[in-house]
Amino acid sequence: MFQTFDEKTVSETSKNRIYLLREEMRKKNIDAFLIPRNDAHMGEYVSDRDKRLEWLTSFSGSAGYCIVFKDKAFLFVDGRYTIQAENQCDENIFEIRNIPKNSLIDCINESFEEKALIAYDPWLHTIEQILEIHSNKKKNIELIEVDNFIDTIWIDQPIASVELMVPHLLKYSGQVHTEKLEIIGNILSNVGQSNVILTQPDTIAWALNTRGTDLIQTPVALCFATINASGIANLFIDPKKVDDELRKHLGPNVVLHDIKSFSLFLKTLSGIVRIDSNRAPIAIKHILEIAKVSFTYDSDPILKLRACKNKTELEGSVQAHIRDGAAVVEFLSEIQYAQPGFLKNEIELVKLLESKRYATGKLKNISFDTICGSGPNAAIIHYRVNTKTNRTISLGDVVLIDSGGQYLDGTTDITRTIAIGSVAEEVIDANTLVLKGMIAISALRFPKGLSGRDIDSIARQALWSKGLDFDHGTGHGVGSFLSVHEGPQAISRHNNVPLEPGMIISNEPGYYKKNSFGIRIENLIYVKECLRDKNHDDRCMLEFETLTLAPFDLNMIKVSSLNEQEIKWLNNYHSNVYKKLNSILTKSAKKWLKAACIPI
Amino acid sequence: MFQTFDEKTVSETSKNRIYLLREEMRKKNIDAFLIPRNDAHMGEYVSDRDKRLEWLTSFSGSAGYCIVFKDKAFLFVDGRYTIQAENQCDENIFEIRNIPKNSLIDCINESFEEKALIAYDPWLHTIEQILEIHSNKKKNIELIEVDNFIDTIWIDQPIASVELMVPHLLKYSGQVHTEKLEIIGNILSNVGQSNVILTQPDTIAWALNTRGTDLIQTPVALCFATINASGIANLFIDPKKVDDELRKHLGPNVVLHDIKSFSLFLKTLSGIVRIDSNRAPIAIKHILEIAKVSFTYDSDPILKLRACKNKTELEGSVQAHIRDGAAVVEFLSEIQYAQPGFLKNEIELVKLLESKRYATGKLKNISFDTICGSGPNAAIIHYRVNTKTNRTISLGDVVLIDSGGQYLDGTTDITRTIAIGSVAEEVIDANTLVLKGMIAISALRFPKGLSGRDIDSIARQALWSKGLDFDHGTGHGVGSFLSVHEGPQAISRHNNVPLEPGMIISNEPGYYKKNSFGIRIENLIYVKECLRDKNHDDRCMLEFETLTLAPFDLNMIKVSSLNEQEIKWLNNYHSNVYKKLNSILTKSAKKWLKAACIPI
Repeated sequence: MFQTFDEKTVSETSKNRIYLLREEMRKKNIDAFLIPRNDAHMGEYVSDRDKRLEWLTSFSGSAGYCIVFKDKAFLFVDGRYTIQAENQCDENIFEIRNIPKNSLIDCINESFEEKALIAYDPWLHTIEQILEIHSNKKKNIELIEVDNFIDTIWIDQPIASVELMVPHLLKYSGQVHTEKLEIIGNILSNVGQSNVILTQPDTIAWALNTRGTDLIQTPVALCFATINASGIANLFIDPKKVDDELRKHLGPNVVLHDIKSFSLFLKTLSGIVRIDSNRAPIAIKHILEIAKVSFTYDSDPILKLRACKNKTELEGSVQAHIRDGAAVVEFLSEIQYAQPGFLKNEIELVKLLESKRYATGKLKNISFDTICGSGPNAAIIHYRVNTKTNRTISLGDVVLIDSGGQYLDGTTDITRTIAIGSVAEEVIDANTLVLKGMIAISALRFPKGLSGRDIDSIARQALWSKGLDFDHGTGHGVGSFLSVHEGPQAISRHNNVPLEPGMIISNEPGYYKKNSFGIRIENLIYVKECLRDKNHDDRCMLEFETLTLAPFDLNMIKVSSLNEQEIKWLNNYHSNVYKKLNSILTKSAKKWLKAACIPI
Repeated sequence: MFQTFDEKTVSETSKNRIYLLREEMRKKNIDAFLIPRNDAHMGEYVSDRDKRLEWLTSFSGSAGYCIVFKDKAFLFVDGRYTIQAENQCDENIFEIRNIPKNSLIDCINESFEEKALIAYDPWLHTIEQILEIHSNKKKNIELIEVDNFIDTIWIDQPIASVELMVPHLLKYSGQVHTEKLEIIGNILSNVGQSNVILTQPDTIAWALNTRGTDLIQTPVALCFATINASGIANLFIDPKKVDDELRKHLGPNVVLHDIKSFSLFLKTLSGIVRIDSNRAPIAIKHILEIAKVSFTYDSDPILKLRACKNKTELEGSVQAHIRDGAAVVEFLSEIQYAQPGFLKNEIELVKLLESKRYATGKLKNISFDTICGSGPNAAIIHYRVNTKTNRTISLGDVVLIDSGGQYLDGTTDITRTIAIGSVAEEVIDANTLVLKGMIAISALRFPKGLSGRDIDSIARQALWSKGLDFDHGTGHGVGSFLSVHEGPQAISRHNNVPLEPGMIISNEPGYYKKNSFGIRIENLIYVKECLRDKNHDDRCMLEFETLTLAPFDLNMIKVSSLNEQEIKWLNNYHSNVYKKLNSILTKSAKKWLKAACIPI
């Protein structure tokens, strides 16, 4: 099993650990110390060695930060994690604060009237984060960079992973890395930049066509890199992660260095160096300043290149989705055949689904911990089942299952919400509205140049008409055997990046009724150019192609609420699901799928 | 008639006038002079006296600017006006440049290698406009403020209008002006500002509950004003425009000054003065700087207050729309009864429509020159018929009529596109798609907090599905017996102002096939809070109420392309139109309307 279900509760160790930390602060004459969830790469996942926030506070969420004062401590988390933080942390030690309602800077400013010294590890905070504190703090407060105090007091801190970095084959990437490096070099030279400093393992992985297993569920090796205007890369990585196969793959245009020499190397750079101030640790800024290296803030140039998948990547994704869809259908058929008298719990469902994906023989990992919520649990948008919350599913329940797989040819992410037996009319009505929104995006055509913000309302219109809505974006970008959450594109009120052909994105409207039920329907789709109709305008129009293959639960749909176009779309989709999957299914799943895909 | 149809062609006077201007430039040692279309109030319309750009270039469009060098001259206009400028101007004298493709600053920078002096009238350019030139111009170029050269050489320049400023009665405004002034005063004092300087006659008109007739089609008197944090206003206006009735209306909280003393008065201000840098002339900035008066840039506080119409204004608008709708129906019935054998031209239709509005006995003016385009003329979005373009309408033609009236109780703006006889299927298909978009906005519910940008795509979705779109916003704000184009709200990709209850806005999707036909359907709507359904979320939802009352041409609708909800909306709308209008129509119009509103 890739996923675990340990219940993480209030830590009894926090008391001792925070005592040790304050001892360390006292020795160094420090009034407060910052502990973020991030590592130096600022990604969604961190390795066990970098779980400093969790070690100290017991909070295991994917975002948050703690500030420890001499006599108090605050844990800042967003709305997704408030309840989880309350459950996991000792609130006698850590006061939990909601962001963005509360801000770290206010907390700092309110805490000190006299001169005070706040310490932080410069590798764990971005340039933007520290500059923001600097420009808003009161004058009596000073910031100081230190070696991480947690690393000093954490006796049994895990050693860094030394898993191999491996080549990602051309048959999956579709473009040799030397060509990618050349393109990046040209981008730099066109704007007069000499080098770009890369601190995110997932953009380095894309540029060098490499992958790894240092992080859970995102297949990358932790490393840093630079690429210069001639398209030559310098890769900084633990030598234990490098073997001859990798060396051969990287070739002469990628110079290998021990990750320990990264800082020293940065000092040797000349010309104007590009850094992404939203992603790069503030340590890098300071290293360049001390060495008098000129630099400019600019976004990572790989983000835009990587977002538009090439033909090979899209074909890979199609294959991954056939495989993954078949696994999901095996799973669905098994649990839906089981009724009536069905009695499984959420953890059993997660295990069953993972076993189906594993049985494909090609699963590298799940792409995130499966969200499997039944009844009121499904109304918690980021619900992860554990042994304490685990709920036995019985007739009349609605189950939301949001899951995905990492395959060499593609990353998947799918949500289906299913009825166990017959469910309330309110649930069917809501599910039908969510489905209408999902179909509206799936069937949408729109002019090139628009961003996710411009189309987000299309997914919500049906829900809005009944006074309903959902409090998350409609969709996020997805990588190609990389992160399941990959920018810069998204279907969201907050995203202004124009949608471009080749971008893979999720389409996942939902509806959540607190303490009652939750619904989400999710397919992955990709952007492509429309064929032009006869009377078509003289403009470039885009549309979406659906990747995900698995039926929607027809027992959850009120057919009379769908219009002709929606019914046509749904029947076409189901017919396509059956056509693509039936030949690779077990006999019983095939039989089930045939019934599940029957035209309405 | 309010509207005229003179054909404005290449001016033979430009040659002499530009000679005089260059003489003036030579005397003052100036290398270039800027002539904008704006007056000091930066509104959509200018008085005859302020038509300097048209006097020099013959270009009569509502936006543009000219720069005259010693040996060349450029007229900058946007896409709406390129063809018109080519028709009206002598291209041997003025090279026509498209904005935003070409920019004034590039033109200036490319024109001078040596030291050069560019002159401008500081009352005719906003602070932002001049600051932008300053920050982008080459070092060898200097800007200098001068008295307007055009005013010197324009011998028969009309004198300024001296029409009276008149009170706008409480039964129309719904709120006494002293209360408005107090609210504005509180806004200022809450942010520590002492005064706001107001340069837009239409926001002053709202604040003081006054109107006037200095400008065509926008019922305001030209003036300036300041309001201080105690809610006391100073009004700067030509004393000839003031009579005892106005004095009595304004009362002691509005201090009257001759407009000539405006500059002098500004120098006496203390505290922090608020100015809208997008609207205020740069002259004001310089006056304040010389007098060492502190100031801050902030938007005109009246914009947001005025945008949300109160109950009286909304009720007034309802009455104005019943009256206006009846006039439009009289017009439509007359031209549609006339078929077959119908032979009228566009100018005759404009005159007929104006006569019907005039016959209400309450028309103060039309709210803009009627757009009446038949056949290919309708594909020109900003088409205004003149004696040269005037086209005889015959069977098979499609006619687009976009028009509006100014009444004391409200401003109207309506577009209908009608078939004269039977028209091509392509036209009916396109009209049906446009109608679907208009209905989608009309029937939309959406959460409070969203802006026009967030819902603009809803109006386009049906057109997009067939590869079509339109190149203008979906809707603009509308004033209450004020400008027919009133910010800050709009339904547009470029508008981020949250929609609020009480805002009046147009809903006018269209489709234009160049050289062939044009379609637009426009109703005015206003924002209101939704009643909450049974299963409604715990969030505030908004919806629109339709103001405009006139039938859509059923001969232009392909009923089989409408879904159930759309048909229901259309039938409800038509039933409401008939109910509201039938009692005030002539017998023949009533008979026609009954047939026009028959359920489909």
